[in-house]
Amino acid sequence: MSTPERVTAAVLVIGDEILSGRTKDKNLGYIAEYLTRIGIDLCEARVVPDIEDEIVAALDALRARYTYVFTTGGIGPTHDDITADAVARAFGTGISINEEAVSMLLERIPRDELNEARLRMARIPHGASLIPNPVSKAPGFRIGNVFVMAGVPAIMQAMLDQVAPTLDTGVPIISEMIEVREKEGDVAAPLRRIQEAFLSVQIGSYPFFEDGVYGTRIVVRGRDAMEVRRAADAVNAMASSLAAAREAPHKAG
Amino acid sequence: MSTPERVTAAVLVIGDEILSGRTKDKNLGYIAEYLTRIGIDLCEARVVPDIEDEIVAALDALRARYTYVFTTGGIGPTHDDITADAVARAFGTGISINEEAVSMLLERIPRDELNEARLRMARIPHGASLIPNPVSKAPGFRIGNVFVMAGVPAIMQAMLDQVAPTLDTGVPIISEMIEVREKEGDVAAPLRRIQEAFLSVQIGSYPFFEDGVYGTRIVVRGRDAMEVRRAADAVNAMASSLAAAREAPHKAG
Repeated sequence: MSTPERVTAAVLVIGDEILSGRTKDKNLGYIAEYLTRIGIDLCEARVVPDIEDEIVAALDALRARYTYVFTTGGIGPTHDDITADAVARAFGTGISINEEAVSMLLERIPRDELNEARLRMARIPHGASLIPNPVSKAPGFRIGNVFVMAGVPAIMQAMLDQVAPTLDTGVPIISEMIEVREKEGDVAAPLRRIQEAFLSVQIGSYPFFEDGVYGTRIVVRGRDAMEVRRAADAVNAMASSLAAAREAPHKAG
Repeated sequence: MSTPERVTAAVLVIGDEILSGRTKDKNLGYIAEYLTRIGIDLCEARVVPDIEDEIVAALDALRARYTYVFTTGGIGPTHDDITADAVARAFGTGISINEEAVSMLLERIPRDELNEARLRMARIPHGASLIPNPVSKAPGFRIGNVFVMAGVPAIMQAMLDQVAPTLDTGVPIISEMIEVREKEGDVAAPLRRIQEAFLSVQIGSYPFFEDGVYGTRIVVRGRDAMEVRRAADAVNAMASSLAAAREAPHKAG
Protein backbone atom coordinates (compact mmCIF):
# COMPACT_ATOMS: atom_id res chain seq x y z
CA MET A 1 0.00 0.00 0.00
CA SER A 2 1.42 3.39 -0.97
CA THR A 3 1.66 6.06 1.70
CA PRO A 4 -1.16 8.55 1.18
CA GLU A 5 -0.01 12.15 1.02
CA ARG A 6 -0.34 13.83 4.38
CA VAL A 7 -2.20 17.07 4.83
CA THR A 8 -0.72 18.90 7.81
CA ALA A 9 -1.70 21.87 9.95
CA ALA A 10 -0.64 24.09 12.82
CA VAL A 11 -2.73 26.17 15.21
CA LEU A 12 -1.62 29.61 16.34
CA VAL A 13 -3.49 30.91 19.38
CA ILE A 14 -3.05 34.67 19.74
CA GLY A 15 -3.72 36.51 22.98
CA ASP A 16 -2.24 37.81 26.23
CA GLU A 17 -5.30 36.54 28.07
CA ILE A 18 -4.36 32.91 27.37
CA LEU A 19 -0.75 33.37 28.52
CA SER A 20 -1.82 35.16 31.70
CA GLY A 21 -4.19 32.30 32.50
CA ARG A 22 -7.15 34.64 32.70
CA THR A 23 -8.85 32.88 29.80
CA LYS A 24 -8.50 29.14 29.39
CA ASP A 25 -8.09 28.22 25.73
CA LYS A 26 -10.88 26.01 24.43
CA ASN A 27 -10.07 26.30 20.74
CA LEU A 28 -6.99 24.12 20.40
CA GLY A 29 -8.68 20.93 21.58
CA TYR A 30 -11.71 21.62 19.40
CA ILE A 31 -9.68 22.29 16.25
CA ALA A 32 -7.44 19.28 16.97
CA GLU A 33 -10.38 16.90 17.15
CA TYR A 34 -12.05 18.49 14.11
CA LEU A 35 -8.98 18.25 11.88
CA THR A 36 -8.23 14.69 12.95
CA ARG A 37 -11.78 13.72 12.00
CA ILE A 38 -11.42 15.08 8.46
CA GLY A 39 -7.98 13.61 7.84
CA ILE A 40 -5.70 16.59 8.52
CA ASP A 41 -2.76 16.03 10.88
CA LEU A 42 -2.34 18.78 13.45
CA CYS A 43 1.44 18.76 13.90
CA GLU A 44 2.13 21.75 16.15
CA ALA A 45 0.45 24.50 18.10
CA ARG A 46 1.77 27.75 19.49
CA VAL A 47 0.40 30.42 21.79
CA VAL A 48 1.81 33.93 21.39
CA PRO A 49 0.99 37.29 23.01
CA ASP A 50 -0.59 40.35 21.38
CA ILE A 51 2.79 41.55 20.06
CA GLU A 52 3.06 42.05 16.31
CA ASP A 53 6.64 40.82 15.97
CA GLU A 54 5.79 37.62 17.83
CA ILE A 55 2.70 36.94 15.72
CA VAL A 56 4.61 37.54 12.49
CA ALA A 57 7.53 35.31 13.50
CA ALA A 58 5.26 32.44 14.53
CA LEU A 59 3.12 32.79 11.40
CA ASP A 60 6.14 32.70 9.15
CA ALA A 61 7.60 29.65 10.88
CA LEU A 62 4.33 27.74 10.72
CA ARG A 63 3.03 28.68 7.28
CA ALA A 64 6.32 27.67 5.66
CA ARG A 65 6.15 24.26 7.22
CA TYR A 66 2.57 23.01 7.22
CA THR A 67 -0.19 22.71 4.62
CA TYR A 68 -2.47 24.98 6.66
CA VAL A 69 -2.27 27.37 9.61
CA PHE A 70 -5.32 28.24 11.69
CA THR A 71 -5.13 31.29 13.94
CA THR A 72 -7.57 32.21 16.68
CA GLY A 73 -7.99 35.56 18.41
CA GLY A 74 -7.16 39.20 17.92
CA ILE A 75 -9.68 40.22 15.23
CA GLY A 76 -12.06 42.34 17.31
CA PRO A 77 -12.56 46.13 17.33
CA THR A 78 -10.16 47.21 20.09
CA HIS A 79 -6.58 48.46 20.10
CA ASP A 80 -5.24 45.10 21.28
CA ASP A 81 -6.70 43.30 18.24
CA ILE A 82 -3.71 43.31 15.92
CA THR A 83 -3.87 39.95 14.18
CA ALA A 84 -5.00 41.28 10.78
CA ASP A 85 -2.13 43.78 10.66
CA ALA A 86 0.37 41.11 11.67
CA VAL A 87 -0.89 38.74 8.97
CA ALA A 88 -0.68 41.49 6.33
CA ARG A 89 2.90 42.19 7.40
CA ALA A 90 3.82 38.48 7.32
CA PHE A 91 2.52 38.26 3.75
CA GLY A 92 4.09 41.59 2.75
CA THR A 93 0.76 42.96 1.61
CA GLY A 94 -1.32 46.04 2.38
CA ILE A 95 -4.41 46.18 4.56
CA SER A 96 -7.47 48.40 4.29
CA ILE A 97 -11.23 48.52 4.74
CA ASN A 98 -12.83 45.75 2.67
CA GLU A 99 -16.25 46.71 1.29
CA GLU A 100 -17.56 43.15 1.32
CA ALA A 101 -16.63 42.94 5.01
CA VAL A 102 -18.40 46.26 5.65
CA SER A 103 -21.55 44.84 4.05
CA MET A 104 -21.34 41.84 6.36
CA LEU A 105 -21.00 44.11 9.40
CA LEU A 106 -24.03 46.14 8.24
CA GLU A 107 -26.18 43.01 8.33
CA ARG A 108 -25.98 43.29 12.09
CA ILE A 109 -24.76 46.76 13.03
CA PRO A 110 -26.96 49.81 12.24
CA ARG A 111 -25.06 52.19 9.96
CA ASP A 112 -24.96 54.98 12.57
CA GLU A 113 -23.27 52.59 15.05
CA LEU A 114 -20.59 51.55 12.56
CA ASN A 115 -17.96 53.71 14.21
CA GLU A 116 -14.24 53.73 13.51
CA ALA A 117 -13.58 50.96 16.03
CA ARG A 118 -16.15 48.62 14.51
CA LEU A 119 -14.85 49.43 11.04
CA ARG A 120 -11.51 48.01 12.19
CA MET A 121 -13.18 44.61 11.96
CA ALA A 122 -13.53 45.20 8.21
CA ARG A 123 -9.80 45.87 7.74
CA ILE A 124 -8.64 42.89 5.69
CA PRO A 125 -5.22 42.21 4.14
CA HIS A 126 -5.20 42.69 0.35
CA GLY A 127 -5.61 39.44 -1.53
CA ALA A 128 -7.45 37.69 1.30
CA SER A 129 -10.86 36.06 0.91
CA LEU A 130 -13.43 36.40 3.67
CA ILE A 131 -14.66 33.69 6.04
CA PRO A 132 -18.33 34.41 6.83
CA ASN A 133 -19.29 34.63 10.50
CA PRO A 134 -22.87 33.44 10.94
CA VAL A 135 -22.81 34.29 14.66
CA SER A 136 -21.84 37.95 14.84
CA LYS A 137 -21.08 38.79 11.19
CA ALA A 138 -17.55 40.25 11.59
CA PRO A 139 -15.68 37.96 9.18
CA GLY A 140 -12.45 36.05 9.42
CA PHE A 141 -10.30 35.66 6.34
CA ARG A 142 -8.02 33.35 4.44
CA ILE A 143 -4.78 34.46 2.83
CA GLY A 144 -2.45 31.91 1.27
CA ASN A 145 -2.52 28.88 3.52
CA VAL A 146 -3.47 30.85 6.65
CA PHE A 147 -7.00 30.93 8.07
CA VAL A 148 -7.62 33.79 10.50
CA MET A 149 -10.49 33.10 12.88
CA ALA A 150 -12.09 34.67 15.94
CA GLY A 151 -11.08 33.74 19.49
CA VAL A 152 -14.62 33.40 20.87
CA PRO A 153 -15.21 29.63 20.67
CA ALA A 154 -18.75 29.73 19.25
CA ILE A 155 -17.63 32.05 16.46
CA MET A 156 -14.40 30.14 15.77
CA GLN A 157 -16.40 26.91 15.50
CA ALA A 158 -18.86 28.45 13.04
CA MET A 159 -15.95 29.77 10.96
CA LEU A 160 -14.27 26.37 10.93
CA ASP A 161 -17.50 24.87 9.57
CA GLN A 162 -17.38 27.43 6.75
CA VAL A 163 -13.76 26.66 5.98
CA ALA A 164 -13.73 22.86 6.25
CA PRO A 165 -15.37 22.07 2.88
CA THR A 166 -12.64 24.09 1.10
CA LEU A 167 -9.72 22.15 2.62
CA ASP A 168 -7.66 19.40 1.08
CA THR A 169 -7.97 16.43 3.35
CA GLY A 170 -6.01 13.22 3.63
CA VAL A 171 -7.03 9.73 4.60
CA PRO A 172 -8.52 10.13 8.06
CA ILE A 173 -6.68 8.50 10.93
CA ILE A 174 -8.59 5.64 12.47
CA SER A 175 -8.12 4.95 16.15
CA GLU A 176 -9.11 2.20 18.51
CA MET A 177 -9.00 2.53 22.26
CA ILE A 178 -8.52 -0.47 24.51
CA GLU A 179 -8.92 0.05 28.24
CA VAL A 180 -7.10 -2.41 30.45
CA ARG A 181 -7.06 -2.82 34.22
CA GLU A 182 -3.31 -3.03 34.25
CA LYS A 183 -0.83 -0.46 35.42
CA GLU A 184 1.09 1.21 32.63
CA GLY A 185 4.39 -0.25 33.85
CA ASP A 186 3.00 -3.77 33.39
CA VAL A 187 1.83 -3.28 29.82
CA ALA A 188 4.85 -1.28 28.70
CA ALA A 189 7.08 -4.17 27.61
CA PRO A 190 4.44 -6.11 25.63
CA LEU A 191 3.17 -2.84 24.12
CA ARG A 192 6.63 -2.00 22.88
CA ARG A 193 6.80 -5.40 21.17
CA ILE A 194 3.41 -4.82 19.52
CA GLN A 195 4.53 -1.37 18.37
CA GLU A 196 7.66 -2.90 16.86
CA ALA A 197 5.55 -5.48 15.01
CA PHE A 198 3.13 -2.90 13.56
CA LEU A 199 5.24 -0.03 12.33
CA SER A 200 2.47 1.66 10.33
CA VAL A 201 0.44 2.40 13.46
CA GLN A 202 1.19 4.59 16.49
CA ILE A 203 0.44 3.09 19.87
CA GLY A 204 0.00 5.51 22.77
CA SER A 205 -0.69 4.61 26.38
CA TYR A 206 -2.36 6.79 28.99
CA PRO A 207 -2.50 5.68 32.61
CA PHE A 208 -5.50 6.53 34.74
CA PHE A 209 -6.60 6.18 38.35
CA GLU A 210 -10.36 6.40 38.69
CA ASP A 211 -12.72 5.25 41.43
CA GLY A 212 -9.85 3.52 43.16
CA VAL A 213 -8.88 1.51 40.08
CA TYR A 214 -5.58 1.77 38.24
CA GLY A 215 -5.69 1.17 34.53
CA THR A 216 -4.27 2.16 31.20
CA ARG A 217 -5.98 3.36 28.05
CA ILE A 218 -4.15 2.16 25.00
CA VAL A 219 -4.80 3.97 21.75
CA VAL A 220 -3.87 2.48 18.39
CA ARG A 221 -3.88 5.00 15.53
CA GLY A 222 -3.18 4.69 11.84
CA ARG A 223 -4.49 5.26 8.32
CA ASP A 224 -4.64 1.59 7.31
CA ALA A 225 -7.81 0.17 8.87
CA MET A 226 -6.61 -3.43 8.57
CA GLU A 227 -3.33 -2.73 10.34
CA VAL A 228 -5.10 -0.77 13.10
CA ARG A 229 -7.48 -3.71 13.52
CA ARG A 230 -4.64 -6.23 13.69
CA ALA A 231 -2.60 -4.16 16.15
CA ALA A 232 -5.69 -3.64 18.31
CA ASP A 233 -6.31 -7.39 18.27
CA ALA A 234 -2.74 -7.92 19.45
CA VAL A 235 -3.31 -5.44 22.28
CA ASN A 236 -6.52 -7.20 23.29
CA ALA A 237 -4.76 -10.57 23.28
CA MET A 238 -1.97 -9.13 25.40
CA ALA A 239 -4.54 -7.72 27.85
CA SER A 240 -6.31 -11.07 28.15
CA SER A 241 -3.08 -12.88 28.80
CA LEU A 242 -2.02 -10.39 31.47
CA ALA A 243 -5.44 -10.65 33.12
CA ALA A 244 -5.22 -14.46 33.09
CA ALA A 245 -1.77 -14.32 34.68
CA ARG A 246 -3.13 -11.96 37.33
CA GLU A 247 -6.04 -14.30 38.12
CA ALA A 248 -4.02 -17.53 38.07
CA PRO A 249 -2.32 -17.21 41.48
CA HIS A 250 -5.69 -16.70 43.15
CA LYS A 251 -7.12 -19.81 41.52
CA ALA A 252 -4.04 -21.75 42.47
CA GLY A 253 -4.23 -20.38 46.04
CA MET B 1 10.26 54.15 38.99
CA SER B 2 12.81 51.79 37.46
CA THR B 3 11.52 48.87 35.44
CA PRO B 4 11.88 45.73 37.52
CA GLU B 5 13.71 42.92 35.77
CA ARG B 6 11.29 40.55 34.11
CA VAL B 7 11.38 36.85 34.75
CA THR B 8 10.02 35.05 31.69
CA ALA B 9 8.90 31.55 30.88
CA ALA B 10 7.62 29.25 28.16
CA VAL B 11 5.55 26.08 28.39
CA LEU B 12 6.22 23.11 26.12
CA VAL B 13 3.38 20.58 26.03
CA ILE B 14 4.58 17.25 24.64
CA GLY B 15 2.22 14.62 23.30
CA ASP B 16 0.44 13.24 20.23
CA GLU B 17 -2.73 12.89 22.29
CA ILE B 18 -3.08 16.67 22.63
CA LEU B 19 -2.56 17.28 18.90
CA SER B 20 -5.04 14.57 17.93
CA GLY B 21 -7.62 16.16 20.24
CA ARG B 22 -8.04 12.91 22.16
CA THR B 23 -6.82 14.55 25.36
CA LYS B 24 -7.71 18.16 26.09
CA ASP B 25 -4.74 19.95 27.65
CA LYS B 26 -5.44 21.25 31.13
CA ASN B 27 -1.87 22.11 32.08
CA LEU B 28 -1.22 25.26 30.07
CA GLY B 29 -4.00 27.29 31.71
CA TYR B 30 -2.98 26.07 35.16
CA ILE B 31 0.70 26.89 34.71
CA ALA B 32 -0.18 30.25 33.13
CA GLU B 33 -2.26 31.30 36.11
CA TYR B 34 0.30 29.96 38.59
CA LEU B 35 3.26 31.77 37.04
CA THR B 36 1.34 35.03 36.70
CA ARG B 37 0.50 34.86 40.40
CA ILE B 38 4.15 34.54 41.42
CA GLY B 39 5.43 37.24 39.08
CA ILE B 40 6.75 35.21 36.16
CA ASP B 41 5.60 36.22 32.67
CA LEU B 42 4.54 33.31 30.51
CA CYS B 43 5.54 34.58 27.06
CA GLU B 44 4.95 31.62 24.78
CA ALA B 45 3.63 28.09 24.69
CA ARG B 46 4.08 25.31 22.18
CA VAL B 47 2.57 21.88 21.68
CA VAL B 48 4.69 19.29 19.88
CA PRO B 49 4.20 15.59 19.07
CA ASP B 50 6.13 12.62 20.49
CA ILE B 51 8.91 13.02 17.92
CA GLU B 52 12.41 13.51 19.31
CA ASP B 53 13.59 16.00 16.67
CA GLU B 54 10.52 18.17 17.27
CA ILE B 55 10.96 18.16 21.04
CA VAL B 56 14.66 19.02 20.77
CA ALA B 57 14.04 21.87 18.29
CA ALA B 58 11.30 23.42 20.41
CA LEU B 59 13.32 23.04 23.62
CA ASP B 60 16.35 24.71 22.08
CA ALA B 61 14.30 27.62 20.72
CA LEU B 62 12.55 28.20 24.02
CA ARG B 63 15.38 27.66 26.52
CA ALA B 64 17.60 30.12 24.66
CA ARG B 65 14.98 32.80 24.85
CA TYR B 66 13.22 32.65 28.22
CA THR B 67 14.31 32.50 31.84
CA TYR B 68 12.53 29.17 32.36
CA VAL B 69 10.94 26.43 30.29
CA PHE B 70 8.35 24.08 31.75
CA THR B 71 7.59 20.88 29.87
CA THR B 72 4.66 18.55 30.48
CA GLY B 73 4.21 14.98 29.29
CA GLY B 74 6.24 12.07 28.00
CA ILE B 75 7.98 10.84 31.14
CA GLY B 76 6.07 7.59 31.76
CA PRO B 77 7.25 3.98 31.32
CA THR B 78 6.15 3.24 27.75
CA HIS B 79 7.90 3.38 24.38
CA ASP B 80 6.17 6.65 23.44
CA ASP B 81 7.61 8.44 26.51
CA ILE B 82 10.70 10.03 25.01
CA THR B 83 10.93 13.41 26.73
CA ALA B 84 13.91 12.57 28.96
CA ASP B 85 15.96 11.36 25.99
CA ALA B 86 15.06 14.46 23.98
CA VAL B 87 16.06 16.74 26.85
CA ALA B 88 19.39 14.93 27.27
CA ARG B 89 20.05 15.34 23.55
CA ALA B 90 19.12 19.04 23.62
CA PHE B 91 21.63 19.57 26.45
CA GLY B 92 24.24 17.33 24.81
CA THR B 93 24.49 15.17 27.90
CA GLY B 94 24.17 11.47 28.64
CA ILE B 95 21.23 9.73 30.24
CA SER B 96 21.11 6.70 32.48
CA ILE B 97 19.39 5.14 35.47
CA ASN B 98 19.58 7.53 38.42
CA GLU B 99 19.87 5.76 41.78
CA GLU B 100 18.06 8.51 43.69
CA ALA B 101 15.17 8.20 41.24
CA VAL B 102 15.16 4.42 41.70
CA SER B 103 14.86 4.94 45.47
CA MET B 104 11.90 7.20 44.90
CA LEU B 105 10.20 4.59 42.70
CA LEU B 106 10.84 1.93 45.36
CA GLU B 107 8.82 3.98 47.87
CA ARG B 108 5.77 2.93 45.89
CA ILE B 109 6.66 0.03 43.65
CA PRO B 110 7.61 -3.34 45.20
CA ARG B 111 11.13 -4.30 44.10
CA ASP B 112 9.90 -7.38 42.18
CA GLU B 113 7.55 -5.16 40.12
CA LEU B 114 10.30 -2.71 39.21
CA ASN B 115 10.62 -4.11 35.69
CA GLU B 116 12.60 -2.63 32.82
CA ALA B 117 9.69 -0.46 31.69
CA ARG B 118 9.22 1.08 35.14
CA LEU B 119 12.96 1.61 35.44
CA ARG B 120 12.69 3.81 32.35
CA MET B 121 11.07 6.35 34.67
CA ALA B 122 14.38 6.54 36.58
CA ARG B 123 16.38 7.37 33.44
CA ILE B 124 17.51 10.95 34.08
CA PRO B 125 19.86 13.13 32.01
CA HIS B 126 23.28 13.55 33.63
CA GLY B 127 23.58 16.78 35.58
CA ALA B 128 19.85 17.06 36.25
CA SER B 129 18.35 17.41 39.72
CA LEU B 130 15.15 15.56 40.57
CA ILE B 131 11.71 17.06 41.15
CA PRO B 132 9.93 14.91 43.75
CA ASN B 133 6.51 13.55 42.84
CA PRO B 134 4.38 13.25 45.97
CA VAL B 135 1.52 11.67 44.01
CA SER B 136 3.01 8.65 42.27
CA LYS B 137 6.74 8.98 43.11
CA ALA B 138 8.21 8.84 39.58
CA PRO B 139 10.16 12.12 39.61
CA GLY B 140 10.46 14.96 37.16
CA PHE B 141 13.75 16.77 36.82
CA ARG B 142 15.41 20.10 36.27
CA ILE B 143 18.37 20.62 34.00
CA GLY B 144 19.64 24.11 33.28
CA ASN B 145 16.60 26.34 32.98
CA VAL B 146 14.28 23.51 31.92
CA PHE B 147 11.80 21.84 34.27
CA VAL B 148 10.52 18.49 33.04
CA MET B 149 7.18 17.55 34.55
CA ALA B 150 4.51 14.88 34.15
CA GLY B 151 1.51 15.29 31.85
CA VAL B 152 -1.09 14.02 34.33
CA PRO B 153 -2.50 17.27 35.76
CA ALA B 154 -2.54 16.22 39.43
CA ILE B 155 1.10 15.16 39.24
CA MET B 156 2.18 18.19 37.23
CA GLN B 157 0.53 20.46 39.78
CA ALA B 158 2.29 18.75 42.68
CA MET B 159 5.61 19.05 40.86
CA LEU B 160 5.03 22.74 40.20
CA ASP B 161 4.47 23.25 43.92
CA GLN B 162 7.86 21.61 44.55
CA VAL B 163 9.58 23.76 41.97
CA ALA B 164 8.00 27.15 42.66
CA PRO B 165 9.99 28.04 45.81
CA THR B 166 13.25 27.59 43.85
CA LEU B 167 12.33 30.04 41.08
CA ASP B 168 13.43 33.62 40.63
CA THR B 169 10.30 35.70 40.54
CA GLY B 170 9.63 39.24 39.45
CA VAL B 171 7.20 41.83 40.66
CA PRO B 172 3.80 40.18 40.22
CA ILE B 173 1.46 41.67 37.69
CA ILE B 174 -1.60 43.23 39.27
CA SER B 175 -4.82 43.20 37.32
CA GLU B 176 -8.20 44.82 37.70
CA MET B 177 -11.26 43.72 35.81
CA ILE B 178 -14.08 46.11 35.02
CA GLU B 179 -17.25 44.67 33.54
CA VAL B 180 -19.35 47.05 31.49
CA ARG B 181 -22.73 46.60 29.82
CA GLU B 182 -21.46 48.13 26.62
CA LYS B 183 -20.63 46.40 23.39
CA GLU B 184 -16.94 46.19 22.65
CA GLY B 185 -17.29 48.42 19.57
CA ASP B 186 -18.65 51.22 21.77
CA VAL B 187 -15.82 51.16 24.30
CA ALA B 188 -13.05 50.65 21.77
CA ALA B 189 -12.32 54.32 20.99
CA PRO B 190 -12.27 55.60 24.61
CA LEU B 191 -10.28 52.50 25.67
CA ARG B 192 -7.63 53.23 23.08
CA ARG B 193 -7.29 56.77 24.48
CA ILE B 194 -6.93 55.41 28.02
CA GLN B 195 -4.32 52.92 26.80
CA GLU B 196 -2.38 55.76 25.16
CA ALA B 197 -2.50 57.77 28.39
CA PHE B 198 -1.24 54.89 30.57
CA LEU B 199 1.61 53.30 28.67
CA SER B 200 2.92 51.25 31.61
CA VAL B 201 -0.27 49.14 31.75
CA GLN B 202 -1.81 46.76 29.24
CA ILE B 203 -5.53 47.10 28.66
CA GLY B 204 -7.33 44.11 27.18
CA SER B 205 -10.99 43.86 26.31
CA TYR B 206 -13.09 40.72 26.04
CA PRO B 207 -16.65 40.87 24.74
CA PHE B 208 -19.31 38.57 26.16
CA PHE B 209 -22.92 37.69 25.53
CA GLU B 210 -24.49 36.08 28.58
CA ASP B 211 -28.14 35.70 29.60
CA GLY B 212 -29.20 37.90 26.73
CA VAL B 213 -26.90 40.75 27.74
CA TYR B 214 -24.00 42.07 25.68
CA GLY B 215 -21.06 43.40 27.61
CA THR B 216 -17.32 43.75 27.71
CA ARG B 217 -14.82 42.75 30.36
CA ILE B 218 -11.95 45.17 30.45
CA VAL B 219 -8.75 44.02 32.10
CA VAL B 220 -6.05 46.46 33.19
CA ARG B 221 -2.70 44.80 33.95
CA GLY B 222 0.60 46.15 35.12
CA ARG B 223 3.35 45.96 37.72
CA ASP B 224 2.87 49.48 39.13
CA ALA B 225 -0.14 49.28 41.45
CA MET B 226 -0.70 53.05 41.36
CA GLU B 227 -0.79 53.18 37.58
CA VAL B 228 -3.12 50.15 37.39
CA ARG B 229 -5.40 51.89 39.89
CA ARG B 230 -5.38 55.15 37.94
CA ALA B 231 -6.03 53.44 34.60
CA ALA B 232 -8.84 51.38 36.13
CA ASP B 233 -10.35 54.58 37.53
CA ALA B 234 -10.24 56.07 34.04
CA VAL B 235 -12.00 52.97 32.66
CA ASN B 236 -14.67 53.23 35.34
CA ALA B 237 -15.20 56.93 34.61
CA MET B 238 -15.49 56.11 30.90
CA ALA B 239 -18.04 53.39 31.66
CA SER B 240 -20.15 55.73 33.81
CA SER B 241 -20.16 58.39 31.13
CA LEU B 242 -21.18 55.88 28.43
CA ALA B 243 -23.95 54.55 30.69
CA ALA B 244 -25.19 58.09 31.36
CA ALA B 245 -25.22 58.82 27.63
CA ARG B 246 -27.18 55.64 27.05
CA GLU B 247 -29.75 56.55 29.72
CA ALA B 248 -30.14 60.20 28.68
CA PRO B 249 -32.37 59.73 25.60
CA HIS B 250 -34.85 57.67 27.64
CA LYS B 251 -35.08 60.39 30.27
CA ALA B 252 -35.45 63.04 27.59
CA GLY B 253 -38.11 61.01 25.77
